[in-house]
This record gives sequence, C-alpha cells and structure tokens, in this order.
Amino acid sequence: MINPLHVALDPKSIVVIGASENPDKIGGRPLFYLARHGYRGKVYAVNPKRTETQGFPTFPSIDDLPEVPEAAIVAVPGDAAIAAVEACARIGVKVCVTMASGFGETGTAAGIAAEQRMVAAARATGMRMFGPNTQGLANFGTGAILSFSSMFLETEPMDGPVGVVSQSGAMSVVPWGMLRARGIGVRYAHATGNDADVNVAELAAVVAEDPELKLLLLYLESVPDPEPLAEAARIANARGLPIVALKSGRTAAGQQAAKSHTGALANEDRLIDAFLERHGIWRAHDLHELVAATELYLKGWKPRGRKLVAISNSGAVCVMAADAATRSGMSMAAISGATRAELGRVLPSFATTTNPIDITAALLTNSRLFGDILPALARDPAADAFLIGIPVAGAAYDVDAFARDTAEFAENTGKPTVAAIPQAQIAAPFKARGIPVMETETEAVAALAQFVGHYERMREAKPTAAHRPRAVSGSRMLNEAQSLALTGQAGVPVVPHHLCRSANEAAAALARLGAPVVVKGCSTDVAHKSELDLVRLGVNTADDVRTAFDAMRHALESRGLAFDGVLVAAMAKGRRELMIGAHVDPVFGPVVLVGDGGKYVEAMPDTRVLLPPFDVADVERALARLRIAPLLAGVRGEPALDVAAFARATVAVAALMTRSEPRIVSLDLNPVLVGTHDEGCLALDSVVFVET
Amino acid sequence: MINPLHVALDPKSIVVIGASENPDKIGGRPLFYLARHGYRGKVYAVNPKRTETQGFPTFPSIDDLPEVPEAAIVAVPGDAAIAAVEACARIGVKVCVTMASGFGETGTAAGIAAEQRMVAAARATGMRMFGPNTQGLANFGTGAILSFSSMFLETEPMDGPVGVVSQSGAMSVVPWGMLRARGIGVRYAHATGNDADVNVAELAAVVAEDPELKLLLLYLESVPDPEPLAEAARIANARGLPIVALKSGRTAAGQQAAKSHTGALANEDRLIDAFLERHGIWRAHDLHELVAATELYLKGWKPRGRKLVAISNSGAVCVMAADAATRSGMSMAAISGATRAELGRVLPSFATTTNPIDITAALLTNSRLFGDILPALARDPAADAFLIGIPVAGAAYDVDAFARDTAEFAENTGKPTVAAIPQAQIAAPFKARGIPVMETETEAVAALAQFVGHYERMREAKPTAAHRPRAVSGSRMLNEAQSLALTGQAGVPVVPHHLCRSANEAAAALARLGAPVVVKGCSTDVAHKSELDLVRLGVNTADDVRTAFDAMRHALESRGLAFDGVLVAAMAKGRRELMIGAHVDPVFGPVVLVGDGGKYVEAMPDTRVLLPPFDVADVERALARLRIAPLLAGVRGEPALDVAAFARATVAVAALMTRSEPRIVSLDLNPVLVGTHDEGCLALDSVVFVET
Repeated sequence: MINPLHVALDPKSIVVIGASENPDKIGGRPLFYLARHGYRGKVYAVNPKRTETQGFPTFPSIDDLPEVPEAAIVAVPGDAAIAAVEACARIGVKVCVTMASGFGETGTAAGIAAEQRMVAAARATGMRMFGPNTQGLANFGTGAILSFSSMFLETEPMDGPVGVVSQSGAMSVVPWGMLRARGIGVRYAHATGNDADVNVAELAAVVAEDPELKLLLLYLESVPDPEPLAEAARIANARGLPIVALKSGRTAAGQQAAKSHTGALANEDRLIDAFLERHGIWRAHDLHELVAATELYLKGWKPRGRKLVAISNSGAVCVMAADAATRSGMSMAAISGATRAELGRVLPSFATTTNPIDITAALLTNSRLFGDILPALARDPAADAFLIGIPVAGAAYDVDAFARDTAEFAENTGKPTVAAIPQAQIAAPFKARGIPVMETETEAVAALAQFVGHYERMREAKPTAAHRPRAVSGSRMLNEAQSLALTGQAGVPVVPHHLCRSANEAAAALARLGAPVVVKGCSTDVAHKSELDLVRLGVNTADDVRTAFDAMRHALESRGLAFDGVLVAAMAKGRRELMIGAHVDPVFGPVVLVGDGGKYVEAMPDTRVLLPPFDVADVERALARLRIAPLLAGVRGEPALDVAAFARATVAVAALMTRSEPRIVSLDLNPVLVGTHDEGCLALDSVVFVET
Repeated sequence: MINPLHVALDPKSIVVIGASENPDKIGGRPLFYLARHGYRGKVYAVNPKRTETQGFPTFPSIDDLPEVPEAAIVAVPGDAAIAAVEACARIGVKVCVTMASGFGETGTAAGIAAEQRMVAAARATGMRMFGPNTQGLANFGTGAILSFSSMFLETEPMDGPVGVVSQSGAMSVVPWGMLRARGIGVRYAHATGNDADVNVAELAAVVAEDPELKLLLLYLESVPDPEPLAEAARIANARGLPIVALKSGRTAAGQQAAKSHTGALANEDRLIDAFLERHGIWRAHDLHELVAATELYLKGWKPRGRKLVAISNSGAVCVMAADAATRSGMSMAAISGATRAELGRVLPSFATTTNPIDITAALLTNSRLFGDILPALARDPAADAFLIGIPVAGAAYDVDAFARDTAEFAENTGKPTVAAIPQAQIAAPFKARGIPVMETETEAVAALAQFVGHYERMREAKPTAAHRPRAVSGSRMLNEAQSLALTGQAGVPVVPHHLCRSANEAAAALARLGAPVVVKGCSTDVAHKSELDLVRLGVNTADDVRTAFDAMRHALESRGLAFDGVLVAAMAKGRRELMIGAHVDPVFGPVVLVGDGGKYVEAMPDTRVLLPPFDVADVERALARLRIAPLLAGVRGEPALDVAAFARATVAVAALMTRSEPRIVSLDLNPVLVGTHDEGCLALDSVVFVET
C-alpha cells in the first residue's frame, strides 16, 4: 500500500473548503498560490455563496464536487472545521490539511476534545490529517502549495534541493526565507501544526524519499515517539541524505515555554542528543545553525577528515582561523616539507608557508598568488578541507581571478572549500562560481566542522529500531540481595557476599570471606541504608559481625521495616569507583548511564548516556568523552583501568534492561569498583526497582 | 605635558613622505582621503620629482618644508623608510606613521634590526612612531585619515560614536565595514601594525579619552605588557565607556599562527580572561561577537539585571528565546499576577500570559496587541530587558504600529529592548526608530546578555595598577620545611610539624604530635618525594619513626642528594583537599590559582585564576565558579566547608607572592585540607621556588 502521506506532497486534486476570493484570507491564499505556482492537478473550491473563486470552480458543499479530491484544505474555523474534516473523511479524501486553530493548542478540555473528534473521524476511514492549527504544506517542485503563509509573498519562491519540515508554522518558513535570501532553492516548507494525527517526523520520512533532495531541515518542539524519527533517519541515511534538526526546549526554561505553547512533552535533552547522534542526525542549537552550512551540503562533497588548511591575505585571519579550528574540533593540517618548499618558491619571503598560510598583502601586487599556491596544496594528502579568508580587498585586486582559481581548485580536489569574505562585492564572484562564502572565518570553520562532523556521524549511525515508548504503571524496590543477584545473573561481576538470616550465619560468612568484611542491613523498605546506620565497613571479628547483625535487625524491626537479613560482603579493592545507572525513559525506553561514581554523582555529574542496543566499543567511546577519561587511560605513571571489563558490564546491564521478566524500571550500580589492566570490575552495591 | 599621541588623532599639519599622484598607491591614498574627508590642517607632500601632488604643495625633501609638520606618513619602503623616520625625528615631527613593511614582522635579524633603528631614532627625540607595517590611522571626526586602507573606498565612511583600534590592518577596517554596513557611524579605524614603538593599548588609552565615544572596540594578538591596557581601561571605566576586545591566539593553534605571523608572545589565555574581566573589558570570541551588540551600547541604556521578558507572535520563538536565555546566562522574568491579569484582558484566550509571552497569530487581526500589552509589562519590576520576536509578518500586518509602540516603550522604560526579525522589510521600521534588530532570537538574547554582563563587569571592575612584567632570571627550590615555614609566616595555616635532624628528634616529635604521624624526607633536591619513597603515612610508633628516619636518610644520601632532615607532621583530618598555586607570569606578574586539590590537578583541572591584589570576596567568587562549588556549599546533607578560611589563606598567598624578599617564583600548596564550618584549613604540603 502506498503511504497516503505521499499524496500530501503531490495530490492529483485539491479542494479548498472555505474558499475566499481575497488572497489575503486563509481560504484565499492557497488558491492564489496554486494558480501562481503552476499546480497541474485539479483545484476545487467550496463556498456556498460562490460558483467561482479566483477562477476555480466553486461548489456549495464538498458533497457537490464532481470527483473526490485527493487532498482537502480546511480553511473554515471552529465547529465548521470539525464538520468539514468529518465530511472529507466520509467521502474518501486521502489527506486533509486543517488550518483552523483554537483546538488542542489551547490546552482546554473543549479544544482537546474537538481535536480528538477530528482525529477520530480521519482514522475511521484512513484519511490522514495535518494540523489543526497548521500553516500548511508547500511543495515548490509541483506547485502544490497547501499553505497560507505570507512568507511566499514576501520572498520569491524557487524550487531546489532543500526541504524544511517543521511543527511550527514560523519555523517552516523562516529557514525557508533565510535560504531564499541566500539564493538557495527550497522545495518543501511544510508545517504540521498540532501534530494531532500526522506528526512532523512521519512527514519528514516521506519527504526524505524525494531522490532530488540533498538536505532536510527539521524543527521539533518535542519527540513524543522516537520511531517515526528513526524511520526518517533510516530512509535518509540509506540514500546519504543529511538531516539537520533544531529541537527546541533544550533547557528547563525552554521546556516550560514549550509546554505553555503546545503542551509539548518535555524530553530529557541529553537523550535527544544521544538519539539524534545515533541516527546520524546533526543537531542545530538555533536557527542560524540550522541553515548555516547549507551551501556545503549542496556541493556533493564527501568530506573525509578534520584537518584544515587556512589561507589568507591577513595574518589576523590566519590566527583567528586557527583559534576557530580548535574551538570547532578541527585541527590545522601539518603540510609537508615538500609542499612548503613549493609554497616558498611562489610566496614572498616574508609570507608564512606553515599552515595557516599568510600570503600577506603581496596579493595586491600579484593576483596569481592564489592560483599558484593552490595546486601545491591540492596535492598534499594532509589537507582535508580549505578556508580561503579575504577580509579586505578592493578595486585594485583581481578578485575574479581569486574566485576562478578557488573554484577550479575546489572542483579538482573535491575537498570542502569555504571562503570567509565580509565585503559583499568581493564575495559575489566567489558565490557566482559556487564557492560557499561566510562573513567571518569563525562561521566558515564552524560550517566546515559541522559538515565534516555530520558526515562522520552519518557513517557511524546505527539507525536501529527505536524502543516504543511505554508507560510504567508502578514500581517496587528489590532488596540489596535480590538486586545483586539479578545484577550478577545478568553477567555483571558483583562483590562476593552472603545474605545471612542469623548472627551465626553472618559470623560464618565472615569466616568464608575472610576479614575485613562489610555488613549491611537488607530491606526492601530502605534505599538509603547509611541514614539508618545499616552499613558497617571494615568489620574484622565474628563478635563484631554478630553485634552488627543484632543492631541492624533491631534498627529495622523497631521501625516496622522489613528485615530481610544482613548482607556480609567482601571488602573489595580497586582503583576507581565508577557507576552504571539505567532507567526506562517514557519516550526512549531503556537508557543506560555510565560515569564517575561515588557519592557526588548528582552534585557533580560526569556521565554519558547510552541508548541500547550498544556494544563494548560504544561504551568505550562514551567513557572517552568523560571528564575522568585521562584517569581511565592512566595518568601520572598510573596504569590504565580495566575499561573493557567495565564496558562489558555496561553491555550486560543494557541486556538486563531490555529483557521482559522482570521488567526493570531502574537500576543503580554505584560504586562499580574498577581495577587496573585486566583486574576487572566489581559492583559493590545495586539498587533495582522492578515494575509492579 | 600633553601626550604626543593626542597629536596622532588630530594633527595640525601632516606630511606624506613618498607622495604619489595615484590615489591607489600607498603614498597617494592618504592625500586622496585627506582631501575627500575635509581635513582642515596643513597638508604637505614630499616627492623629489614633483612640486604638487593631488593639489597639495610638494617638496623635494622633508628639510624643505615651510614648517615642521606635527605628523608624518612614511610611505616609502626599505632603507628610504628608515631614513625618513630618522629625518622626521631630527626635525621635530611629533608622530610618524610608518606604513612600509618588511621589518620586524619578517622575523629576520635584518628586519628586526632595521625596525629597532627606527624606534631608536624616534625615542632619541621623543617622536612617537606607529608601525612599521601599519595601514595607518583614520579619524573621521577630523578627517585626519593617515591610512591607505582601501576599505574607505569600498564603503562610505561616516563619523560616529564608535572607535576601532587594532594591531592588524584588516581587523581595523573589517569591523569598521561591518558596522558601516549596519548604518553605524565609526569615528576611528586605527591600525598600529608592528607596535614597535606605540602599541595598540597606548593608542586605545588616548582614544578612550574622546568624550563623544560610546564604544571602543579593540583587536589584539598579544599583550606584551598589561599596563597600557590597564590604563586604557581605567580611563574608559572612569567615564563609563565600554571596551570590547577581541584577543586572538586563544588556542595553541592560534598562538602558533600568531607567532608565525607577527612573532607575537603567547599569553596564557585564562590570564587574559582574568585580566580583562578585572578591568571591566568584555572579551569577544570572534569578529561577530566584537560588533554584535554595538547598537545596544549606543542607546544610552543602563542595564541593571538579567531577567528577560520575551514577546512574540510565534510560540516557537518563545521556546527558542527561553532556551537562549538559559544558554546566555539570563533568566526568564517571573512576571507578577497583576501583570498577567492585565495581559489576559488584552490577549486572546489561547495566548500565553506567562513569560515568554506568545501573543499568537492574533497579531494579524489586532495590530494594537503590542501597544496594549507593553505598558503593563513596563510597570512590572521583575522585567529587566525585553525581546520582541517577529519571525514572520507581511503586508497584512501593521508593522509600523509595532515598531512605533516598541520604540515608545523602550523610550519610556529605559530598559534594554531588542527585536529579533529575520525579514529585512519588517526589520526596517524598527531600525528606523532606533530599536536594535537582530536576525534571530538567539543573537538578540546573546547581545542582551553581553550588554547586561558587560555593565555588571564594568561596575565590578577593579582597574588597579597592573604589575609590570619582569623576567625571572633563575630559581631554586626550598626544602619542604623552609617552604612550610615561609607559607606559615605568611599567615597560611600549615600542618603542625617538626624538622628532625636525628632519629631521636623524630621520635620526640611523634611524642609531641601524638600518633599517628606522617614522616617525610626533606631535601632541596627532591620535588616528588613519593617517587623516592620519602613519604610514610600513618606512622604510629617511635620505632617505626626511627626506621623511617634512617631509611630516608639512606635513600637521599646514597643518591648524593641533600639530606636536610626528616619532617614529622601531624595526620590532619579535613573534609576536602583543595589547592592553592601561585607563579610569576612573565607578563602579568604574580598569579594565584585556587581549585580542587589532590593528585589529579593536572589531569582533571578544576581551578580558577586570580590576579593580585584581590580580597576574600574575590576568592569566594572564584570558588563559586569551580565545578566542585556545590560540594563547597554542602551537598547531600553535608555541612558547608570553611571556604572563608581557605579564602583568607589564598589572600595570604597573594601577599607572599607580591613581597620582594624572598622573591617567590612559584608556590604550590596541595593539598590544602579544608574543614567544615569554622574548622579552618591546613596546608599539608608546600613546594616553593625562589628567585636566585
């Protein structure tokens, strides 16, 4: 079966319900656009007072149409909108764009109920609905402009290889406008509004199938379900289409605003980061980042590395480019002695032949300098990407020659090449020859770093099926012995221990484990044992073990708390206390955390998130991004820690979290003592909550 | 005596040596500019082949001039430039702008020597020289354009309240061009080139005295001497003139490039940060940040707080503004219930009356919405600054009304108000009414945050005299007993200890201190004691102390290392190991570091820099910015640490570092054990190097 959402991109016929002769009205503007942009399908209008609207045949009601249109635009408000959606569903319209607002986004019970009636009507017949509260869809490839945005009046549309898919109406057309102002053609500017039926990710998945698209930009305020987004990423990755996503509501303040705005569910932001990274999607932090590197994506370059060569007629730009490279995670390429010698033959004696290359104001008197040095650099294998910085030039410079030489060079090497040129008249010939031009070196380097980093991310993407979100009804804590048992069975090494039901058993455990031991009270009722004095470290004698046993039994029983026995455990030694945590996120499902352990985990967190499934190498990569990474690798002559053992334990935790019986809600192993080299690791404590 | 550099800004007479009729030549362009910009002083030209150049009287040599000009432009190259500088100095020229390049910046011995000849000639008669290798100075207030930059041909100059002072020629005119493109008048675009005599900070100090200036922008590649920059900051702060500085060479790669470029001394970047902060100078990270907030500075606003109110017709902009606020260190103002009630009476029911305020697309049908809600917000004391976000509007909106209402509001409240408007035609009426407009909400919030943060920094500035840089000839290490003695005498609590010359003395020390003790071998030859097994912790008996004494004496003497005795010290207890470090920076003089202590200080640094003089409150502010700050304040029910005692110890270290006898080169107190509440702190170890 064909995905009905494909119809939304190129319907054979469209009806506008609530059509208006006035192109400034919501019901008039889509008709105006359909005519202006040469839409080739059938267009019908519905308006009981008219027989013709903006030249299109007009009917009193949807039931009077000569055929069932594939798509409908609902431009009437309130109850009329509900009736229109119901009528569309009834006659067999495939997709419906409901522009009316005042529904779910109001947050009122009535608004939500009305919205749900529309969704129910659509689902009853298999119709798909966009909105309500959507500006609509715009496809400049087919002229199917089912949108009332005024932006397409303000700026001239042009078809091109970029798509924008957004929940927000403004964010569907503002990136569009920014790209159009730069002369870039944009095919899609789609807004999905309240996402009551079709959500932004579902539409993105359909758009991603367009073989002519070279870049897909998304704006999201929440990810209520990761699967459609994962599906869009799988489709895009399979054909090498990069996706850049701006997910707002990163901060508590932003999430609060999103909640007030659309009732958006607040995602845990670092899970969004981890999810997007794993699926090869680049995350933009703001509107500028969303569109900043567009020109690079459209070039067809296949970036391979992060080693930058910067060339400028200004030493200051060289310095700032090198600063920007470090800041953006690029490095300055170490160009070879042979290349330097070749540069030295061309450049004046006071120029710099190390990278960054300061060709100095000599460019003023020798316009061939660019053309002469670029071939030498093109041959140097150390160079992955190039920045050409021309902060100042003027009438006396042969700027056309610079632009021509740069364009030829980029063409011949196939390596990403960006110019930083603040003066519009100097930038123009570079742009005309297809070289991406930014105003400053910082922007140029940042765009290169994003572009290179994004392709790295796409190559490493693991776009596997996401876990479906599921609600956790309730949970109960296991006692420590049960938690350790579950953890140990899963394959995580746990500290040798015995659960003792009597003082005699406890004394026998001491004898078996050898002194000193740790003695801990075991209760399903107590998570924070030390607060009830239920932890004694370094217990050496049988008498002391017995005393501890009795005291702990008393401490629990006198408070009416479950006394499940006393845990006698070995005093383990290791080099560093790490932690492994896991919980079930309502959206992303099982989530595993690794990081520095100990009692300040909350106050001074140093952790990374992992989304299952993952392997040992993934864990090691996550650990390498911790603040304590140098310590894991060994510092001050200390040996490295047994990171591999810890990584295996983490993978075992992930397996435990994804199995169905018992369903674990959360798990905390802190500390996990990690030894040196192949000494392994040992979970000293385990707190597990299971679903009830 | 008048600072001769004032002459550079407004000389009564100027001579161009190496004058050319061709305005595209270095010797022709200044004459062209002087004529074009209405310079009112006398202008002379020197060229042996001409009697008139571009209409100015021309003489064969500088000795033939009818008067001694106050300023000279040296536009001849090489040896002729040296001769011209010497001649200028000889006849009594006050300031000379040497444009010729090929001197110190080449890094060759010959180039450096030639440059030094020019400096020597200037200093011999009190002439001040700019350059060599400078594009020159430009003052659009007086028309004294002693510059050959082509930028003033590309963009129309206009006088205004901004000054740019830069080492780099490009960076003197690129910010100028960016501001001019935004319609902002700029008075100064000065480049100082090689800074062989006059440096960029000296010139900045003179420019800062211009009473009409409202913003001073600096570009620096190195700070070889902090005093002129401190002087510029003192002058600027005294009259409330904000300085924004772009100091490049932040990173190792950038410093390497700066060294290749101009031989710039590599400053330790965090000292630059600390120095600029203390002097009230805002540090820009790149060219965009240098100029981004200019419009705000020119408004005359006196910002007082960081609480933002954001208003938009797009919910997405509201969400992104809230995200940006958190990211920039601003917070969303909690507007009062009364204000919300008032907003509720004006806004449609589905709009948001919490902050950020989403007035929704209702703006389309009611253009008075802005004008109606702004007065209510103006009265709310919680609001410090405002963002107006209009991502989309068009012909149907009464944008002029929005702009007028916003401008009136900003005028009436005197509170910083910035608009985020990506469409040029919507932005235009706001700009016309003097409202700063950025393209996106992120930029707008960042500009507000910088503006507010900069005024905070200016209010808190302590622009005291900087320490003159001085070279440290050599240094030697004190032994631990000497180091502890010096540290203790300075007022830092040190661990109770005894330096023992015999095993008997050591045993007696144990008796006095009480078991357990620490025993450490004491030697001026050994910095890392543990590597030679010279540290024994938890020694309990006299016999063990004696054994340790003998073993340590043997360990040192058998290796031919000085044996200065054995230190027997109390085993102190505390809550956390911090550290205090200090050293003499070649530029900034004494520098003190505070932070987390222990053995991973280098591998996982968590430190802040303090530049003396500073007080206890300064130290506490620095500690509050550490990663471990939550722990210092007390987490998980733990009591707070005695931060005050630690701060007093840090102030004592600063006093020690600035005293003259002995001159301390470096000092490391690690760990400094800090107790709870008023338990104080105790330096357990001290390593001091003194100057030899």
